[in-house]
Amino acid sequence: MKKIQAGAISVLLFTIAVSSYAADPLPSWNDGPSKNAIVSFVKDVTSKRSDTYVPPAERIAVFDNDGTLWAEQPLYFQFIFAMDRVKALAPQHPEWQTTDPFKSVLSNDLHGVLAGGNEGLVKLLAATHTGVSAEEFDAVVHDWLKTARHPTSKRPYTDMIYQPMLEVLQYLRKNGFKTFIVSGGNLEFMRPWAEAVYGIPPEQVIGSHFGGKFEARGDGFVVVQSPDSFFLDDGPGKPVGIHTHIGRRPTMAFGNSDGDMQMIQYTTSGPGLRFGLIVHHTDATREWAYDRTSSIGKLDKEIDEATTRGWTEVDMKAEWSRNYPEPAAK
Amino acid sequence: MKKIQAGAISVLLFTIAVSSYAADPLPSWNDGPSKNAIVSFVKDVTSKRSDTYVPPAERIAVFDNDGTLWAEQPLYFQFIFAMDRVKALAPQHPEWQTTDPFKSVLSNDLHGVLAGGNEGLVKLLAATHTGVSAEEFDAVVHDWLKTARHPTSKRPYTDMIYQPMLEVLQYLRKNGFKTFIVSGGNLEFMRPWAEAVYGIPPEQVIGSHFGGKFEARGDGFVVVQSPDSFFLDDGPGKPVGIHTHIGRRPTMAFGNSDGDMQMIQYTTSGPGLRFGLIVHHTDATREWAYDRTSSIGKLDKEIDEATTRGWTEVDMKAEWSRNYPEPAAK
Repeated sequence: MKKIQAGAISVLLFTIAVSSYAADPLPSWNDGPSKNAIVSFVKDVTSKRSDTYVPPAERIAVFDNDGTLWAEQPLYFQFIFAMDRVKALAPQHPEWQTTDPFKSVLSNDLHGVLAGGNEGLVKLLAATHTGVSAEEFDAVVHDWLKTARHPTSKRPYTDMIYQPMLEVLQYLRKNGFKTFIVSGGNLEFMRPWAEAVYGIPPEQVIGSHFGGKFEARGDGFVVVQSPDSFFLDDGPGKPVGIHTHIGRRPTMAFGNSDGDMQMIQYTTSGPGLRFGLIVHHTDATREWAYDRTSSIGKLDKEIDEATTRGWTEVDMKAEWSRNYPEPAAK
Repeated sequence: MKKIQAGAISVLLFTIAVSSYAADPLPSWNDGPSKNAIVSFVKDVTSKRSDTYVPPAERIAVFDNDGTLWAEQPLYFQFIFAMDRVKALAPQHPEWQTTDPFKSVLSNDLHGVLAGGNEGLVKLLAATHTGVSAEEFDAVVHDWLKTARHPTSKRPYTDMIYQPMLEVLQYLRKNGFKTFIVSGGNLEFMRPWAEAVYGIPPEQVIGSHFGGKFEARGDGFVVVQSPDSFFLDDGPGKPVGIHTHIGRRPTMAFGNSDGDMQMIQYTTSGPGLRFGLIVHHTDATREWAYDRTSSIGKLDKEIDEATTRGWTEVDMKAEWSRNYPEPAAK
């Protein structure tokens, strides 16, 4: 009995080994400098005979989320979620009719919402992301995703993920990398769906987050998200989040905007071979084209830094044969 | 060529499968209620035909460190490290000769050190754990471990780890669990050695920690530990640390003192089958016997909670056939 089982496993292993060598690991990437750079870097750090070999335990790859793994226009999707949540909660908060940023959200006045700056934004996040247990918030995010549709594409938000980046995630994991999200978005917003959509488990999602409070509820206990503190995992906060959460300097880092610059600087200034990549949104037809002057996903300082330091810059229009995965058959 | 390789792998898998079933996975545990409870729980959650099956991705086991994975008497080892570090840094800090808690440390007056309470302790930690980059601190911890010896056993601190718990860690990992440390100790103190000693990688070490600051250094960039904030991963902080870092409720939790109570409450009040265990230090001959009145590793409220809620309580003296691993051959 055991013999037969072992034999079956060997056939399976043999099949996997052959197919993974035969197939193109990045089929949605056109042949070009970025695809070549990714594939040759992975060969360099995984070939045992190479001077630049990195042991599997140290193969850490970090990915920004908004604009790197999924789209971010015309507004960060979490921001749209927060505004929808204000509308859903408004009946319980009559005071929101007269106080900003809520009043502006309720009257669909985006300029008014943004006029409050970061302070207004954190108020909006605190009102919509705290006061509930982790499990309750998870359900809220799941429910929203079921019905929410993108304002122009009309697609579910989780369909607007980048197929070429999904292939990079899978390719790296096949090559022994642990893949992490390191996002300015809130981890409690991303974790409910990151595993199903990206194959990234909750414990490998790093993001901005509120504090937590341990509370008894009935016979049991929960952690309730609490507005008493806020960690901003963006810009210089990204390497700090990586230090606190991972405790190793990553081998590879992927981003798309100035908020990812410090994460890529931190990654690529470690000893040995390191890899930094920025996704440049150049595709006004299939997606959006934006960089130095965009209010969302501004890519300005980082593009100069990428040139100076030799990071890989992806020209989305030229180098990606498609953006989104095919819709799943239903 | 590939055929031969696949055949070789099948022999290897066959050998592993046979030996893992044949051997006792917990040889340093005497047959008794705790060993039975661990083994039967693991069978219940890993048997696919069981109603209580837990998929591998959700198999999370969390372990306190001090008093659970290694010894903690007569003082938490990190505290001894901090005092040694004060002595090493004292020449650069003449002001420490006249200010507490440093003055008391320098005159070996432990009562004086403890008189400062938590505030004094955080001062001591801030002075000895911040102001340096993550990489520099890692080297400081490694250097200390090389020469530091326990005051009574005269052994290196990393030899005073509990062999029975190492076996639990390995047994759980073989059964598809991810093992995490969730400690009141600082993560920057544990991470440098947790992987070599426990097989737990840095990204699975959760602990108290200071803030971080991203800084340019020469051509590169570092994260410097900074005293501007401090997260206490103890008591109610442990479930909060688990929420922020792991984002799932664990399946199993292991502790030994009142500081672990909320972690085990949080773990065991999740839906489905859950497991809580406390190590009760009952062995005054091979180790130390202490519980309700100890100033280090006080086990008082938690022992009552364990009885009420049916957690497993390990009687170290009766249930462990040995405490520490054999010294490695040199």
